[in-house]
Parts: sequence; C-alpha cells; structure tokens
Amino acid sequence: MAFSITILGNSSAKPTLNAHPSAQVVNLNEQYYLVDAGEGVQQQLIRRGINPLRLRAVFISHLHGDHTFGLFPLISTLGLMGKRTPLDIYAPAPMGEILDYHMRYFDSDLPYEVKWHEVRTTEHRIIMENSTLEVWSIPLRHRVPTAGYHFKEKQPGLNIDKFKITKHNLSIAQVVAAKRGEDITLEDGTVLPNAELTYTPYVARSYAYLSDTAFSARAAERVRGVDILYHEATYAKSEEQWAKGRGHSTTTEAARAAVKAEAGRLIIGHFSSRYKEHDTLVEECRAIFPNTDIATEGATFTIEERRP
Amino acid sequence: MAFSITILGNSSAKPTLNAHPSAQVVNLNEQYYLVDAGEGVQQQLIRRGINPLRLRAVFISHLHGDHTFGLFPLISTLGLMGKRTPLDIYAPAPMGEILDYHMRYFDSDLPYEVKWHEVRTTEHRIIMENSTLEVWSIPLRHRVPTAGYHFKEKQPGLNIDKFKITKHNLSIAQVVAAKRGEDITLEDGTVLPNAELTYTPYVARSYAYLSDTAFSARAAERVRGVDILYHEATYAKSEEQWAKGRGHSTTTEAARAAVKAEAGRLIIGHFSSRYKEHDTLVEECRAIFPNTDIATEGATFTIEERRP
Repeated sequence: MAFSITILGNSSAKPTLNAHPSAQVVNLNEQYYLVDAGEGVQQQLIRRGINPLRLRAVFISHLHGDHTFGLFPLISTLGLMGKRTPLDIYAPAPMGEILDYHMRYFDSDLPYEVKWHEVRTTEHRIIMENSTLEVWSIPLRHRVPTAGYHFKEKQPGLNIDKFKITKHNLSIAQVVAAKRGEDITLEDGTVLPNAELTYTPYVARSYAYLSDTAFSARAAERVRGVDILYHEATYAKSEEQWAKGRGHSTTTEAARAAVKAEAGRLIIGHFSSRYKEHDTLVEECRAIFPNTDIATEGATFTIEERRP
Repeated sequence: MAFSITILGNSSAKPTLNAHPSAQVVNLNEQYYLVDAGEGVQQQLIRRGINPLRLRAVFISHLHGDHTFGLFPLISTLGLMGKRTPLDIYAPAPMGEILDYHMRYFDSDLPYEVKWHEVRTTEHRIIMENSTLEVWSIPLRHRVPTAGYHFKEKQPGLNIDKFKITKHNLSIAQVVAAKRGEDITLEDGTVLPNAELTYTPYVARSYAYLSDTAFSARAAERVRGVDILYHEATYAKSEEQWAKGRGHSTTTEAARAAVKAEAGRLIIGHFSSRYKEHDTLVEECRAIFPNTDIATEGATFTIEERRP
C-alpha cells in the first residue's frame, strides 16, 4: 500500500521566484490529504499530477497566511470542478469564522459542504480516523496556536499463509475467520492456533509534520518511532536566539528533534528566504542526524513497507 | 515617458498549469498600478522584475476570486517587506468589509495603512487623479457589480522651442511662464504669442481594461479613442449565448467593442480554460479588428509617444 509525501512548497512567508510556501500532500493508498495550503497550492497540485478532487481532507497547522492563503482559491476551484462530497478541513480556531466570511463573500453557492473541524492546539489526541489511518494533533510552540500532525497508518490486517490453506483444505469461512485473528478447529478436532496460520504483512508506518515550531522535546517524544519526520528548519544553526524569538527552529534543533523522536528519516523545510541555497542547512542537520534531506519542491518521499 | 502594460495573468477562474488568473501592471513613468490581483500575483510581480513596494495603487474590477485572491497575500508580504506608505485599493463594495476581515485574522499588525476607495460600478467618473494620470471607472455588465478602468494620461506639459530661447534671450522666469502657457512680452515691448514659443510634445495616451463583461456598446463608447483596449474574450465566437448567460464576451464581441471604441489596438484575455491554444481566438478577432493580440502572460505592451 502506498504511503508517500509530496512536497508542494517549502518556503517561509516571504515569497521568492522559484519557491512556494508550505504545502504538501500525504498519499496513503491513493487517499490524498493536504497538509497546509500556502498560496498557489491548487496550481502546485496540478503541477504534481494530483487532481484536487481527490483530496480527502485538509490539515492546517496554524493561521498564518503562508500556510493558508491557498486554501480559499482551492475551495472555489473545487466548486467550479463540481465537487459534491464534503471537504473536511482540520484547523485551529478561528478558521470557522474565516471560512464563514470566505463563503459569504466568494463562495455563497458552493455545490459541496465545507466542514471545519476544530483542532485544539494544546491537545495531543486523535482528530481524524478511518479504516487505514489515524491522524493525531501534536501541540507545537509557535507565535500563534499551532498543531503538528502525526499520520499513523493502522496496523494492517493479517495475511494468511497460502500454503496452510492448501495443506489443511480450509474453507472460505475458515480463511476469513483466521484473518480476523481466530484459531481454527478442523473437522477432526485439531485446533490450529492463529499464529501458525497468519502473519502481519508489514509494520504500520507513520509520518509527522512539525511546522511551524520552536524546538519542542515534548513534540518529538510524541512522535517517537516515526518513519519520516518533517521538521521545520527556518534558520541556520547560528541563528538560535533569533529562531527562538520568532517561534521557529534552526537546523540543529530540527536534527535534535529527529534524534529525540528516533525518526527513521528527517526532512527539513520552511526555509527563510535569506537562504539562496539549502545545502549548508542540510549539512548542519546531517552532522547530528545523518539521514536528513531537503523537502525539495516537487520531491516525493516514500515510506516503504517493512516486514515485522 | 513610459506608458506600458505588463500582463501577469490572463486566464479565467479555473486554474491551469501554465496560466495565472487576471492581473496586470500599468506603468506610467515608472509609477506602477496593479489591475486585478488573481492568485499568485505577488510571485508574478517578482517574476516580471517589478518590486511590489513600487505599486502606487491597486484597482480591482470585481470581487470574484480569480481577480482578488492574490491581493491578500500581497498585502501581507508588503508588511513583511516593511512598507510604510499607504496602499490605495480601488474596488467595489464590499471590499472594505473583506479587507477588515483580512486585517483582523491575518494582518492585525501591518506597518502601513491599507486604504480602500469604493468604486461605484454604475458610475462613469474619475476615481483617482495625480499629476500625470486620471483613472476613470467604466460600468460593465457582469454577474456581480464590476467596473472597467480607463487610464488616461494627462495632457503633457508644453515644451519650449530651444531655438526661440536663444533667439530672444529669454530669462528662466520667461521660460517658466511660457511653459505655463503664457504669452511673453520682451523688453522692447514685443509680445511673443505662446503658440510661437511652445509645442505639445506628444498626445496624451490612454489604456482601458474592460473585464469581466458581456458586450457593452456603452462601455466601448466611453473609452473612445483609447490607444490600447484590453477586452476580455472568455469564449470563441460560436459561444455567444453561453457567454451572455455568464456575463462574458466572445472574441467577436471583443473585436466589435474595439471597433466601436475606435481603439488603436486590441488585447484579448481572460480565456476559458477549455481553450488549450489561443491562436484561433485571436484570428476570430482579427477578422473584425486586425490589430488584435493575445494578452500573453509576461508580455509588455507599450504605448509609444505620438506627435500631435
């Protein structure tokens, strides 16, 4: 089952010619989730071959413009595209009020419902759940109420060992029962323990988005074991005091968060426009956490299935 | 003195990969005026080498998202850039309310003032004036209240014939008086009529932006003699009924407007996303009004100075 993250934008507030502000798409089994929505996100979706109608939900970390201004044109366009199913938007307050005024002035006749779900940025809890995914809110430390998001794949269902089906001549009903985790009793009274018949196909995967935030050991601990950690690194390591004052992180702090989280991989982004190249930034991280990469616009990061 | 129009975007509401929604910059003597502000306009300004801080005013034709969504990020960025002088925004109501919401939620601490000037879309009148320029509102026919804008250069000041200065040994005071249009009396009592001393360097130029609108003979008459007419041509000529129902124009109607306006040149834009190429559209116009061009994104159209 696919689990990947495509970067639509990685820059901070001040726009530059070739960089878009924060936005990315999480793809879990061809279900698409938009995480933040900087200006231009609808065009960026098209550029990366993702039909905006395929978005299942939108998650907004906080109500700064560089994370939200692309949401409103996207809402309008989905109307023009004839969307009929609701669009779920997870965001801190007062997004509800902002959406109300957007609807009133620009989209009073949308053909679909926009459903806002308030994210309480002080709470670490499940905010969305479906058959394959849980999304948790992670309290962050920024200048305004901000949540990170932790996408946790649910433990995949049991697979049955096909050799055992043949060997014991199992019926379809018995196979279904085994996949549910039950032991199976054969006609001769023999009991086959479930563990002998089934196996977990792969370990549940996870992805965490922690941006915008000053360094938070607590947030890192809450995503412990995450496969890919996206952590903002707005500034170079030499700018620690400046970063703290702005509610942002340095490269070093992003790397420390990855160590603390025991992450499989670190992706850094949300770079200040003062940095014309990002190689130095990623090297600063790698000195502490080697498996670091830049959240290059257009890049897709895949979390492969891993056997237990 | 420069008088040019640079196209930042020419597409209608539905975004496509390579086209931005409506926005353009009018440059009169290095004073820049933004006309409409579709999503991405701030990045488009940078792409065309125009520092957003140099914008003197913004003119919004109507409150559809494809003409306005770029305004709000631009307002934020001008704050980040440290703008201190007011930004004048000319737009129909209820832009004032929308700006209030924007300020409250996203830009409560801007370092400069945003001044909204209501444009009454039923009135043909001067809405802005400075030493070189008048801007007139032109009532248009769209689904919501919409104004076109007519940029009329003021009659340039008189130039004095340098040969006459030498010949009559005119003083600086006399030269200044002549440039004001006065006759000059020499020491010997000879009166030099102003017309013998001065000349008009070039004819005042003008540009009109009529979008979005159904065909309006009235609007075309109001911009009679315009040097460059930008007229929307959302649809091909075969779509006249559809265009009318949507408050838009066809290519043929744009060309008819140019004929009616006795325009020097016609530029068409605001194309529906259904048209993958625009050569056919421009040919349909040229059959009626030969001097027609496409408002290609990134193109600059210059109005040259012309002797009286």
